[in-house]
Amino acid sequence: MMDAAGHVAPDKVARAVDEIAAFLGERISRSAAVCEQHGKDLTWNPGDPPDAVAFVQSTEEVSRIVRICAAHGVPVIPYGTGTSLEGHFSAPHGGISVDLSQMNRVLEVHEQDLDCRVEAGVTRKQLNEYLRDTGLFFPIDPGADASLGGMAATRASGTNAVRYGTMRENVLNLTAVMVDGEIVHTARRARKSSAGYDLTRLLVGSEGTLGIITEVSLRLYGIPESISGGVCPFPDIESACNAVIMTIQMGIPVARIELLDEVQVRACNAYSDLGLKETPTLFLEFHGTEAGTHEQSETFGEIAQEFGGGPFDWTTKPEDRTKLWQARHDAFWAGKSLMPAKEVFSTDVCVPISRLAECVVETKRDLAESGLFGPIVGHVGDGNFHVLLFCDPSDAEEKGRAKAFSERLAMRAIAMDGTCTGEHGVGVGKKPFLEAEHGPGLQVMRAIKAALDPGNIMNPGKIVAV
Amino acid sequence: MMDAAGHVAPDKVARAVDEIAAFLGERISRSAAVCEQHGKDLTWNPGDPPDAVAFVQSTEEVSRIVRICAAHGVPVIPYGTGTSLEGHFSAPHGGISVDLSQMNRVLEVHEQDLDCRVEAGVTRKQLNEYLRDTGLFFPIDPGADASLGGMAATRASGTNAVRYGTMRENVLNLTAVMVDGEIVHTARRARKSSAGYDLTRLLVGSEGTLGIITEVSLRLYGIPESISGGVCPFPDIESACNAVIMTIQMGIPVARIELLDEVQVRACNAYSDLGLKETPTLFLEFHGTEAGTHEQSETFGEIAQEFGGGPFDWTTKPEDRTKLWQARHDAFWAGKSLMPAKEVFSTDVCVPISRLAECVVETKRDLAESGLFGPIVGHVGDGNFHVLLFCDPSDAEEKGRAKAFSERLAMRAIAMDGTCTGEHGVGVGKKPFLEAEHGPGLQVMRAIKAALDPGNIMNPGKIVAV
Repeated sequence: MMDAAGHVAPDKVARAVDEIAAFLGERISRSAAVCEQHGKDLTWNPGDPPDAVAFVQSTEEVSRIVRICAAHGVPVIPYGTGTSLEGHFSAPHGGISVDLSQMNRVLEVHEQDLDCRVEAGVTRKQLNEYLRDTGLFFPIDPGADASLGGMAATRASGTNAVRYGTMRENVLNLTAVMVDGEIVHTARRARKSSAGYDLTRLLVGSEGTLGIITEVSLRLYGIPESISGGVCPFPDIESACNAVIMTIQMGIPVARIELLDEVQVRACNAYSDLGLKETPTLFLEFHGTEAGTHEQSETFGEIAQEFGGGPFDWTTKPEDRTKLWQARHDAFWAGKSLMPAKEVFSTDVCVPISRLAECVVETKRDLAESGLFGPIVGHVGDGNFHVLLFCDPSDAEEKGRAKAFSERLAMRAIAMDGTCTGEHGVGVGKKPFLEAEHGPGLQVMRAIKAALDPGNIMNPGKIVAV
Repeated sequence: MMDAAGHVAPDKVARAVDEIAAFLGERISRSAAVCEQHGKDLTWNPGDPPDAVAFVQSTEEVSRIVRICAAHGVPVIPYGTGTSLEGHFSAPHGGISVDLSQMNRVLEVHEQDLDCRVEAGVTRKQLNEYLRDTGLFFPIDPGADASLGGMAATRASGTNAVRYGTMRENVLNLTAVMVDGEIVHTARRARKSSAGYDLTRLLVGSEGTLGIITEVSLRLYGIPESISGGVCPFPDIESACNAVIMTIQMGIPVARIELLDEVQVRACNAYSDLGLKETPTLFLEFHGTEAGTHEQSETFGEIAQEFGGGPFDWTTKPEDRTKLWQARHDAFWAGKSLMPAKEVFSTDVCVPISRLAECVVETKRDLAESGLFGPIVGHVGDGNFHVLLFCDPSDAEEKGRAKAFSERLAMRAIAMDGTCTGEHGVGVGKKPFLEAEHGPGLQVMRAIKAALDPGNIMNPGKIVAV
């Protein structure tokens, strides 16, 4: 079926493409440029182009494509906005990329039920724009304007998961095409159910390896009456982390609590003209009633002081908050502006919050010893942080050092009862760590993959692939 | 392997029991009384006794038992506290009941991380008793003092799921024994992860059909600084439901919002001496700071008034709140005291909240037309409600009417995009509705079951069984 390099046989691809072109017409492309763009992500992960890209417009089209590909043993790889950081849409065995970006309709909004149903290609910003007049919003915010299907497939989260949860908690139901072309709705619209296996949660985070997500039903939230936010400097990482732990433990419903280390603060000062003290700093946001957000902000200020931090400079003015969070979202570009010629490699560990300070401190020591440049930003309310590693792509030695560092980081997090990936997913990049992280659980995952995709055509080479 | 009635062959059972007795000694019993008690739940579901009951004390013992049973093709059925309402631990094919009640140790409490790890036989009250001095608590409260392993296995929830979620959201990690005896830890202790398939959520709600849960790691919460609560009468079901919808939509973080219809209020008045007006009534609770719970209570009072309800009579006095919630938990017994000679049958539908009033009103009409007695209580913040049907067990005609009613109710909820079971699970009782609820998803569930339990020995006859 595959040649020596593991690539699907060209004649099988050709036949599948012909059969698909019969109903997609111009919407399937074999252009080298289109294929290249659909195989390589934003990071230094090596990417393999698919043999063709199908631009689909309905679940039924996806179903027909999957049936055809299954019949010919040709891989199918879903593609959203291409903002993956772990090579999720690379096609190491070739095959057909299913580009869902034209499936971008908001199908239903149920204001009374605080939920909606969208096609997989709708992006989070598009959804929030659509919801603007309803008083509702969808909170999950991974930074990039990712597609909601892609966010579901990678179990994405971001800055306000500490308050609103991740895609795991906020996807109510999925429409997915399984390998036999069957269209499955994983749940109904009730807020909770005990009716059988949780297919929704099984597909959330499955990265296209069990089925292709074509529609997503999501929880929505009322836009808070009042939002307050601000920044709080700390003398060191430990005191910042301890203030976070106390905040969570006291049950203060913080909406965002982000750590920037002194390197990242310096980068943001330079890039976004923030004028902050260059020391470990928390960015915070509180959502609630006016009285509630004021109370929460004041209480946090007292906690910060108790741990030697502060002053906590907070405001409810939208323009000041917007500048702050824009700077936080630009952390990647701020780092990059300090190292314009370098490529970036993002790490994504998550540990129990009690181990966070220890994990960050050890990681910073390792970074210094490795001679690497890497600002740190963290969704610290969840124990999740990223080191943005900058490397010269043409310098094999430096790349090797960065790779070894990121491997040590993943194993350090796992040793602290954490995970190698808090929100980016496994893709190709984190496959080597799953054995250490899951032990015999990995065999259970492989049994599920084999049962639901016996021909191994659903995004092969990812997550549980050997 | 099985006889004509589908019962496993006695010689296989005998050999398995002998091999298990070799290391469990007196802790495996074939006494008829013990077997009877381990096969029949509290409801009118017919129960089948297992052939033997093994009282286990460790995950390793469970692993050895499962290996032995797998080798002989003998069913294994997990048993916690026996508070199931859907025949989960009935043994229609015979086999060995694995009683986990002696696995009742709290293994770890991580106060900084707000989590703990317990053996599956620990009950929720036992855990909260253990946590008393830490300032933390575990909120999920299905009424009965169920085991935490059983609650995970059935995806239980209860009165405060509207604020804290269900077992789906609150189980962080499970230890489970799979059919090959392998001991799997489904996740690590990080609050979030994107590292592969969500085995935790796959096992939560799988009712022992994929593996036996032996340990549960749970989220904990700080005991709120202030709790306020009270009751609010409404002129009719619709206005009560509309007040609930508005409360949720405004983002008021209500901790409990329970509907009792006028029949249930009458029963509670009689049983618990509440002196309430006999009209549809909401029981509410708010958790937060003192200022927060006062603000929330006042705001809810205004909402109630807007929909013709009220006055909302609330208090922060613990003794008054305790009486109220004890009465709510005693709703079952209150109903039973009105109909002492009858058996009870609990229904458990859950619908989108926008359909709740319609579903309850139609159900009450059906109840009247069917000539059945059934008070209604509902976790209405989630759209979940129960009709407690009372029947004379010796009156086949009345039982038939009740069964037909409960079937119509399940199908009514499914037609409203809801579920036949919000929190009790499928077990034996709700199996007939899964095809209507899940369509082709049921085949996906069956493929997973076949992959993880090819010999069909893990609690056979439940959920996806034909």
